[in-house]
Amino acid sequence: MTDIPTTVDRALAAAATAARPTARTSAADRAGWLRSAADALDAAAADLVPLAMSESHLPEARLTGELARTTFQARLFADRLDRGLLHDVRIDHADPDWSMGARPDIRRSSVPIGPVLVFAASNFPFAFSVFGGDTVSALAAGCPVVVKAHPGHPELSRRTASLIGKAFPEGVFGMVEGEQAGADAVRDSRIRAVGFTGSTGGGRALFDLAVGRPDPIPFYGELGSTNPVVVTPAGWATRAEEIATGFAGSVTLGSGQFCTKPGVLLVPDADAFLAAVPELSAGPMLNARIESGFRSTACEMATAATVVRGDVASGGPVLFRAGADDVLARPEILEQEVFGPAALVVEYSDVDQALAVLDVVGGHLTGTVQGAPGDPDAAEVIARLAEHAGRVLWNGWPTGVTVSDAQHHGGPYPSTTAPLHTSVGTAAAQRFLRPVAYQNLPEDLLPAELRDDATGPRRVDGAPRV
Amino acid sequence: MTDIPTTVDRALAAAATAARPTARTSAADRAGWLRSAADALDAAAADLVPLAMSESHLPEARLTGELARTTFQARLFADRLDRGLLHDVRIDHADPDWSMGARPDIRRSSVPIGPVLVFAASNFPFAFSVFGGDTVSALAAGCPVVVKAHPGHPELSRRTASLIGKAFPEGVFGMVEGEQAGADAVRDSRIRAVGFTGSTGGGRALFDLAVGRPDPIPFYGELGSTNPVVVTPAGWATRAEEIATGFAGSVTLGSGQFCTKPGVLLVPDADAFLAAVPELSAGPMLNARIESGFRSTACEMATAATVVRGDVASGGPVLFRAGADDVLARPEILEQEVFGPAALVVEYSDVDQALAVLDVVGGHLTGTVQGAPGDPDAAEVIARLAEHAGRVLWNGWPTGVTVSDAQHHGGPYPSTTAPLHTSVGTAAAQRFLRPVAYQNLPEDLLPAELRDDATGPRRVDGAPRV
Repeated sequence: MTDIPTTVDRALAAAATAARPTARTSAADRAGWLRSAADALDAAAADLVPLAMSESHLPEARLTGELARTTFQARLFADRLDRGLLHDVRIDHADPDWSMGARPDIRRSSVPIGPVLVFAASNFPFAFSVFGGDTVSALAAGCPVVVKAHPGHPELSRRTASLIGKAFPEGVFGMVEGEQAGADAVRDSRIRAVGFTGSTGGGRALFDLAVGRPDPIPFYGELGSTNPVVVTPAGWATRAEEIATGFAGSVTLGSGQFCTKPGVLLVPDADAFLAAVPELSAGPMLNARIESGFRSTACEMATAATVVRGDVASGGPVLFRAGADDVLARPEILEQEVFGPAALVVEYSDVDQALAVLDVVGGHLTGTVQGAPGDPDAAEVIARLAEHAGRVLWNGWPTGVTVSDAQHHGGPYPSTTAPLHTSVGTAAAQRFLRPVAYQNLPEDLLPAELRDDATGPRRVDGAPRV
Repeated sequence: MTDIPTTVDRALAAAATAARPTARTSAADRAGWLRSAADALDAAAADLVPLAMSESHLPEARLTGELARTTFQARLFADRLDRGLLHDVRIDHADPDWSMGARPDIRRSSVPIGPVLVFAASNFPFAFSVFGGDTVSALAAGCPVVVKAHPGHPELSRRTASLIGKAFPEGVFGMVEGEQAGADAVRDSRIRAVGFTGSTGGGRALFDLAVGRPDPIPFYGELGSTNPVVVTPAGWATRAEEIATGFAGSVTLGSGQFCTKPGVLLVPDADAFLAAVPELSAGPMLNARIESGFRSTACEMATAATVVRGDVASGGPVLFRAGADDVLARPEILEQEVFGPAALVVEYSDVDQALAVLDVVGGHLTGTVQGAPGDPDAAEVIARLAEHAGRVLWNGWPTGVTVSDAQHHGGPYPSTTAPLHTSVGTAAAQRFLRPVAYQNLPEDLLPAELRDDATGPRRVDGAPRV
């Protein structure tokens, strides 16, 4: 069994030492590690799920599903490694007639960015924690990973680390605990990139450390998002009950503790909408700190909007209501994420006003249209949501994020600190791969994927090849 | 003729207003703009080149070539727009059997990031200035551009802006002048990304402004680089004269005022190497400010290394010499870019020591190996350079950067502030494209490039298609 370093200095020293050999492993080697670690977690599901239940208060079915998603995601990266799909390979052969002047042979692939620090999230004890999306995408890219465990599930984190640690060579995986350890590691020159999922305040503070270093590094932070939903007049006219029921389910799913929870819904008739929303119920929250944060942000929201369902003091599901004019006058109320089972219902007078509200809100992970077939407003609402969000949904709900090649879980600030990148899906590995162009290298000195006889998708002299 | 706004507030207001219509133009529209602007510049070459000569002190042949490169690069982006090659299109069809749970239909493309501020460079009055690589890549992506003109060639900048402005709709292109205008624009919420080419000090100050905003934005800065060259023992044994001659040419090309100038060369025998270097000569520098910067950084270098050719006071070409041990003891001397015709020759005792020197130096745009066929050290030197640089060359010189699809002009800090991105080549447009995933959209509401009947390269259900 590989020894897993747990003090900051030991973990970073081990990761730094492992960086070069890790960068030189083959895609097949790394795919093998990911599969071994996934197998180890699946085999321990009967131990891990009860431990996760006791620390997170999340129900068994959710955690069983989340563990399955977590190991699936590791194996998906392994498969894409096997198929050569993580690098953006481009080959431009030498061309004496290139119009700007004779072109040398230029071939571009990428190298791992180096040791990556991953801040685990509270709300996904498996899928965004020790062996979550940030960790597996960095490992797939060939980077050693040091996880800063989340204090919300410490025993589960240690048990997970112990199980997966066996899958990796010395130094490739480490874990540290404690806020100070995390901040120290962000500032340490041995760390070359950071993945973070958590609150806007905490994430911004760490972002500031990362970009304030003598040598700034990429900080991939997934922070807060209010995920607006626009119910169009046509959608409301034809699908009212379905929309109200779906909304109730999505707002309370996982006790509202999802970064994609629909926190704001715009609707043409708030009275009728609220009357159609069924009774809301939610399970316990992850921990006392998150519950206290929920109460305090909900209290703040109550100073700008009317509480129309539940009550802020009891901490249960809460719905707020405001008019579009109120929001346009105080746009900051839309940027306040209330992390938990709460949402703001905004009544608009016409679609132009709804679009104006979208334009005053900050960046989001998701934006949703609830429309109808042939909806005259759908195209404009979709285009406007795409200006402000990283994922745009039609007649669905943003909670539940599939892991696939086309997925994008990101968005403009404050939803993330790196709007060009995703923390979910196979494109997440690109965050940790730094392009390198090789000029006029003899064939035998080229990285394997850049040789003329290599297979895999590539762009050759400007033309895509599969 | 379109009116070109020149005050910061007017330019930013116009760009912000133009952002939405620009984002909704077709690739063909944008290709047309780029070609019109390129045609306008080519047609005015007889006016532009003499103006550039008078302001930059660069020779006619160089500037004629640089203008040709500039318009070529705009047309290359136009061609790639026509061929659908700038977006990373991914389509995952709905899949009820997706292992982690039924998958919705997810299709990913990208949207322009919004108005882009471009800081023009001094040393490429055409290719990295008003209509340079940053400008054309942002326009190709669908972003309005506001250029902050470089004070080294003000009349040329105004003339260029006036000529290309006619090619774009209102607000798509603007230009401002003055340091304060640039800093103000970086902080303005209407600017969504910044491209910069210039000094490490100036670039870092602007980077700090960009990431210190309430809403931080991507800052693509290309700062300083010393571009190490390693002459292997085998390379030295077989190609001594060719290497010494090539080095002299590359160090003095354009009076050493290239970001890719080889600033450090590691060689097994410095005496013999220096004896083989022919006489160095260089033309005048771009302007008095750059000449003064050259003298002052060269003076600093002279405190850590011996001047062995030229003299610092006269400002002509200068070579410095140091031992690898000296460099290992004072690694900061390797991070100091002396912008102008100067380089440091470092003698190493064995290849391991040369590799150790590479490991103490900061990030670079380029790294070069001067080796020989069958060179036993080549593979390790190449791998080590790839850890620290964005382009690795074999038996060539890093000055002269071709514009192509596989090109990467970037590297770890301090050579750039965004090591995953390039400012040269068609991949430069990715800096200004923000991915968006669309979930379960009806076919007729999808962006055109994501429909089932669209053409162009894409990844469908995990498999590349051309």
